[in-house]
Amino acid sequence: MQKIGIGIVGLGNIGSRLYNEIIAKKTDIGLKTNTNINIVAISAKNINKKRSFKVNKKIFFKNPLDITKNPKVNILVELIGKSDGISKKVVEDALKNKKNVITANKALISKHGDYLTSIAEKNKVNLEFEASVGGGIPVLRTIKEGLATNKISKVYGILNGTCNYILSEMESTKDSFKNVLKKAQNLGYAEPSNPKLDLNGYDAMAKIRILSSLAFNKKISNAKVLMEGIEDIETKDIDIANQLNLRIKLLGITELINNKLFERVHPCLVKKDTYIANVNGVMNAVVLNGSPVGESVLQGEGAGPGPTSSALMSDLLSILRGNIKFPFGIPSNKRKKVNSYDKNNNFNSLYLRFEVKDKPGVLSQITKQLAKYKISIARLIQNPDHKKKTASIIIITHKAKELNSNNCLKSFKYNKNVLKYPTLIRLL
Amino acid sequence: MQKIGIGIVGLGNIGSRLYNEIIAKKTDIGLKTNTNINIVAISAKNINKKRSFKVNKKIFFKNPLDITKNPKVNILVELIGKSDGISKKVVEDALKNKKNVITANKALISKHGDYLTSIAEKNKVNLEFEASVGGGIPVLRTIKEGLATNKISKVYGILNGTCNYILSEMESTKDSFKNVLKKAQNLGYAEPSNPKLDLNGYDAMAKIRILSSLAFNKKISNAKVLMEGIEDIETKDIDIANQLNLRIKLLGITELINNKLFERVHPCLVKKDTYIANVNGVMNAVVLNGSPVGESVLQGEGAGPGPTSSALMSDLLSILRGNIKFPFGIPSNKRKKVNSYDKNNNFNSLYLRFEVKDKPGVLSQITKQLAKYKISIARLIQNPDHKKKTASIIIITHKAKELNSNNCLKSFKYNKNVLKYPTLIRLL
Repeated sequence: MQKIGIGIVGLGNIGSRLYNEIIAKKTDIGLKTNTNINIVAISAKNINKKRSFKVNKKIFFKNPLDITKNPKVNILVELIGKSDGISKKVVEDALKNKKNVITANKALISKHGDYLTSIAEKNKVNLEFEASVGGGIPVLRTIKEGLATNKISKVYGILNGTCNYILSEMESTKDSFKNVLKKAQNLGYAEPSNPKLDLNGYDAMAKIRILSSLAFNKKISNAKVLMEGIEDIETKDIDIANQLNLRIKLLGITELINNKLFERVHPCLVKKDTYIANVNGVMNAVVLNGSPVGESVLQGEGAGPGPTSSALMSDLLSILRGNIKFPFGIPSNKRKKVNSYDKNNNFNSLYLRFEVKDKPGVLSQITKQLAKYKISIARLIQNPDHKKKTASIIIITHKAKELNSNNCLKSFKYNKNVLKYPTLIRLL
Repeated sequence: MQKIGIGIVGLGNIGSRLYNEIIAKKTDIGLKTNTNINIVAISAKNINKKRSFKVNKKIFFKNPLDITKNPKVNILVELIGKSDGISKKVVEDALKNKKNVITANKALISKHGDYLTSIAEKNKVNLEFEASVGGGIPVLRTIKEGLATNKISKVYGILNGTCNYILSEMESTKDSFKNVLKKAQNLGYAEPSNPKLDLNGYDAMAKIRILSSLAFNKKISNAKVLMEGIEDIETKDIDIANQLNLRIKLLGITELINNKLFERVHPCLVKKDTYIANVNGVMNAVVLNGSPVGESVLQGEGAGPGPTSSALMSDLLSILRGNIKFPFGIPSNKRKKVNSYDKNNNFNSLYLRFEVKDKPGVLSQITKQLAKYKISIARLIQNPDHKKKTASIIIITHKAKELNSNNCLKSFKYNKNVLKYPTLIRLL
């Protein structure tokens, strides 16, 4: 039995759970891989923080970079987070020192994945990052192995559990975004100090960039993309969606349109009877369209110590079994760069909500302006608020060009009858 | 680049599609695995059958057993089907001759999988059978790799596309089982000559046996199990289910109850708003409960040349990449035998439908008999048919013991007011 040393850098919720999992599953892993694994090095910002296990000081390193050089360490697990700084340095150095690396860090991989992959391949070690996308859903491994050789045309899904929880909860409780966010923070579903990166779509976008690269065998793009979060969704929108038999979901979508890459994250209105509309709470789901397989769906818990450590353990087993060495399935130098699709050319049906003064002529101003920008109306609902002397005008449009709809909405900035910037949600 | 020879035995719909896929994806596969693959041997019952490609007579073998000895063949793909006879002999001989084997044959694996695995391990070659369960859903690989080290407690799902299509279609068209089956046969969703093995639950049961073994790291069981098909489901049942906000699905379920294995396949009444109730048509879906991952769901097309060849190709890549050699994830000699749970001890809420003569006293005879067998009633619906002077009595019970409910239903055999053997469907 081969002796394998593991180093873990970062001992927060995830790191601590992984530590316990590795110790609990040591025999099982030995059976499956014919190895004898041991945690031989750990590092954390604060050695004295309260944890679910007693820190063995003999294997504790104050400076994580010392672990990257330690000859006893064969596999390093990076659980610090953030795309740059010490996390990048730790992964980079470990790969250069011929250590296999496992990371859950989507910010790091989506930004520096190509560079780190080339170091890993040069040094013939694994770089595994299953936990960076979809928590417990083994979607990266499924693309690399289970669906290997499929020609994938589109991948989309619910990739951020925080947003999905908030939207589901706003619908079921009728409570405001602000209150539901507070609840999510109390439950540990949203970051207490700075939840912005979840709410503005950044987190889902990092995952979409990783998924695209794997699905389409290409380099990670850093193009300017269509990215919108859920911060501006109001209970009003959720109610109206409900009446229209629709539901609002924050989706990440990536597809090839005429061989150009179109990556985007934004709220979508989806029909209630579709699969994706019924993935609620903190669940994540990914839908893949491929040939010859057809449509494949994967669903599971998207975050938290349990699902994340499940993914980290699958990475560990992949390394111990000596499985594929190409982090993105094919050699780096064969992964092409793909040009980006111009998002302004995209056509979408839209949900528009205007908050206006309730007085004659306002509706005609709006419809005139829409016509000017070639946006044709499929459905219109006007809900007056007699007390405030205002009204909500909700318009569902036929397919309109992204550029036109943006310009059209901007044009209302100087219309005093329109009380705030109109809300736009795309229909899927 | 290593030269690898592939032999394909069986060139029906699946075999032909695979043949074309391998040729089309040769370069892609070369990139991903650094190999040069070629189809060097093929065999089929009838060389002259019309196919999507021209059979190269130079590589055609009349006797498939000759392929198992051919030194040019490194990987043999068995696509004949059936658990015994020539398919078993081909796989057995190939493994003994140190050929890697890929098969889509669930009947073979669920019956002889343990034996064939031990030969594969002894000869240090792969035996891969992703296509045997769930068509395009890479569920076996997900259990072995993506969810490796999870402690799985339960696996259930829709594993037979034929039955799911028939039940969905009966609901949407209100047409009879017989007519819908005919339609399914015309569309190629059900076997034209003998659809029995799909309809009676046998096919789903073979898949459940394979899933159990992988999920619970145990030998394949051959215990007598609870297996019922959909042949007795009538439009009436589907309508009533609909009224009760339920839907009928044929489910395969495997779980460990107090360390005893409970495998079963039978129609289930599931709530309409659940995930599994909304998997319709020929789709398959598998739900896994594991720790630490939580609930994972996989959904995709369950059959047909496209999805099946996707699974076969993933097996091919696994072999070419030199991935894990244990067909069931861990060495054969470490897979335990697990005792079976006595199905008679199981408790389930039941849907019972009695077709009776519409005359006084009949209902009381039924309820009295139920009480005698300790089956308590949660809900009762009586639908009279005045013309025929008959009635349907539908009863939803509280949880009742399997043994009691079977004995109770049998006891009605000699009641002349009960016109046929009562229909029983378990609630999930």
